[in-house]
Amino acid sequence: MTPLADLSIAGQRLCFQSIQEKTAMTEHSLWRFSRALHRAINERQLDDLEAVIDEDVEWAIYGPIDMFPFLGARRGKEAVLEAVRQIAENVSVHRFDRESIMLGVDTAASMLRYSLTALDSNQPISLRVAHFAQFKAGRLRSIRVLLDTFDLVEQMLGRSIHLPRMTSCA
Amino acid sequence: MTPLADLSIAGQRLCFQSIQEKTAMTEHSLWRFSRALHRAINERQLDDLEAVIDEDVEWAIYGPIDMFPFLGARRGKEAVLEAVRQIAENVSVHRFDRESIMLGVDTAASMLRYSLTALDSNQPISLRVAHFAQFKAGRLRSIRVLLDTFDLVEQMLGRSIHLPRMTSCA
Repeated sequence: MTPLADLSIAGQRLCFQSIQEKTAMTEHSLWRFSRALHRAINERQLDDLEAVIDEDVEWAIYGPIDMFPFLGARRGKEAVLEAVRQIAENVSVHRFDRESIMLGVDTAASMLRYSLTALDSNQPISLRVAHFAQFKAGRLRSIRVLLDTFDLVEQMLGRSIHLPRMTSCA
Repeated sequence: MTPLADLSIAGQRLCFQSIQEKTAMTEHSLWRFSRALHRAINERQLDDLEAVIDEDVEWAIYGPIDMFPFLGARRGKEAVLEAVRQIAENVSVHRFDRESIMLGVDTAASMLRYSLTALDSNQPISLRVAHFAQFKAGRLRSIRVLLDTFDLVEQMLGRSIHLPRMTSCA
């Protein structure tokens, strides 16, 4: 897959019928949001993103906010744009692959594997991400994002964190 | 929500039309799998689960396998049942809430918040989980599960892991 192309759909059956009925030939809101988000992160151009975010958006990326202050919950467009600005100051997106995807009329969920670069260290970071999004009139109304946060923390630290093995394990 | 009831759907629009066309009035495979999985974990009765898992199932729960050897990738029914047996030796499910869900004909994705109990310490654990699943003839064909692993590790350790703040953050 070419970097930042947004087409890989790993064998998931989609709800095409419902989508086609409601949106005719128009593009799903997810694709426009995804392009705008990646442009905002990599080019620090937030105008496309601003156009596809609802004023009252609910936004949450679950993760350790002590280390990554741009994670966590945000409410409203301005707070979300500021969080994305901070993400853009810290990482760039090298490529991403969608491993699973489900699309509804105004909803979308996917699991992705991102190849990022940490801007201060130029260090590559591989990160698995799951999101559940709702759109309203083509704009993002809510999104919840789950990350494999322990893997992320270890990569950012550049070392393993020693963990005990759970005792009950065979 | 009552413990282990599996009905909370947090405002996600579902692809009802596609589902109804293909499956008429039958229950979605996700619900049967979910009941069987929770029975396997809490009652250590794996017969229901065995009946809803494909022989060649692909299974992955992403997380630190050094600490949690029952996480990671498995292929085939026997390997998956053994992993679930090990999960059942380590945790029980107190309750779970589905925060987001999407259903396709043979696919399902949800984001859930689990309240678990670690069996060796009797310690409560709160864990956010996202899964993407595919079914074939009513049986689980593949599932990928993402956890908020850093949060999980800290709860299992019973202490915070000190993290540096990323330097580029405002």
